[in-house]
Amino acid sequence: MGSIGESDKYLLNRHQENHFTAGEIVRDIIIGVSDGLTVPFALAAGLSGANVSSSIILTAGIAEVAAGAISMGLGGYLAAKSEADHYARELRREQEEIDTIPDTEAAEVAEILAEYGVEPHEYGPVVNALRKNPQAWLDFMMKFELGLEKPDPKRALQSALTIAIAYVLGGLVPLLPYVFIAVARKALVASIMVTILALLIFGFAKGYFTGNKPVWSALQTALIGAIASAAAFGMAKAVQGW
Amino acid sequence: MGSIGESDKYLLNRHQENHFTAGEIVRDIIIGVSDGLTVPFALAAGLSGANVSSSIILTAGIAEVAAGAISMGLGGYLAAKSEADHYARELRREQEEIDTIPDTEAAEVAEILAEYGVEPHEYGPVVNALRKNPQAWLDFMMKFELGLEKPDPKRALQSALTIAIAYVLGGLVPLLPYVFIAVARKALVASIMVTILALLIFGFAKGYFTGNKPVWSALQTALIGAIASAAAFGMAKAVQGW
Repeated sequence: MGSIGESDKYLLNRHQENHFTAGEIVRDIIIGVSDGLTVPFALAAGLSGANVSSSIILTAGIAEVAAGAISMGLGGYLAAKSEADHYARELRREQEEIDTIPDTEAAEVAEILAEYGVEPHEYGPVVNALRKNPQAWLDFMMKFELGLEKPDPKRALQSALTIAIAYVLGGLVPLLPYVFIAVARKALVASIMVTILALLIFGFAKGYFTGNKPVWSALQTALIGAIASAAAFGMAKAVQGW
Repeated sequence: MGSIGESDKYLLNRHQENHFTAGEIVRDIIIGVSDGLTVPFALAAGLSGANVSSSIILTAGIAEVAAGAISMGLGGYLAAKSEADHYARELRREQEEIDTIPDTEAAEVAEILAEYGVEPHEYGPVVNALRKNPQAWLDFMMKFELGLEKPDPKRALQSALTIAIAYVLGGLVPLLPYVFIAVARKALVASIMVTILALLIFGFAKGYFTGNKPVWSALQTALIGAIASAAAFGMAKAVQGW
């Protein structure tokens, strides 16, 4: 098998990147919808048990959705940017080490391969091949020593918007009944029904996309919603009781 | 450099695992406190602008903290468990491929090394060394083909508890003024002061621990809090205005 040409390498990388991006978008949707369906629902349910009007519950719910979407979205954006900066710093440092202390870096490559039971006379040629190809050597160190993937600059913004929008859409599901039903306890009943349904459907889809048993995932997701709202309900009653 | 003995390998792995765990605990604290400081603060601020009593704000805030901690904690726990299941499945699959189609797996090792400009006569001995050591071969494929690290079974619970507790502690900071000050608008002023201070301090610490400029991180973190609460305030006013 000959060495892979530049164009093949390019195609291989593009394929891996697309594979990563689709998986990451699904992951961000899961993160956003999971919390978006659960927390606003629990908050509204908790307040409903505390004799608060639909109007106040809607106010609280929509304020929480706005705050949550921004916190998760902007927070996710800055975290991704910070990872990109971290990668750039580590890249510069590895490059410097390759330039100034190549023997130490070569020894690190040897150490990595030796971990897999490869003998010096076996990994020697590989180390030498890398030493002759500084760009490949740098890529090797970034991936195999540091375990870092080159982040896509578009991902930070993409991730933030995906999470934020998913959170808003998730949050609207349990809150819409309070728009149409003025009596909180009645709106609560409708909210419980649509939200449990949404949690089951979403949990099923989540299991399907992540390769976990969808029915079990659906039940787990609905259960988290139930536990979170029971806790919110209990805390709201407790606070009102003071 | 001779091949690394079993005990050295064990020490190397233990060191790496401790390194990972400390970083992951810090990451979980950052995730929990970031949202915990921001969302309950924004919710309380938003409701304060909507002429709601301190009592209701506290009810909503504490209900939200309970719901958020459970959603993030339980959600994080299940996500970690799901990753562990995924790793176990991929491990079984790779083991099976090594047992039943070793030539294909060997070709995959060759392809991985060839990406770094290593010629067949150079990587050949490495591939053969791996073929003779099925356990090392399996570890190599898991790490270098699939990029998967063996998850620590304790981590799922550890991660869940860390995020949940961090969220609760973060959320209590902006809510405590509402415990002591009955007039919501006055409590809001105190809440703004303590929360901005907490956001700045936390942002600074976050920057310090993640290797980003701490002052810039402090300002960014406080800014997210400000934007989230402005949005919550605006949404609350809008909903009340209907």
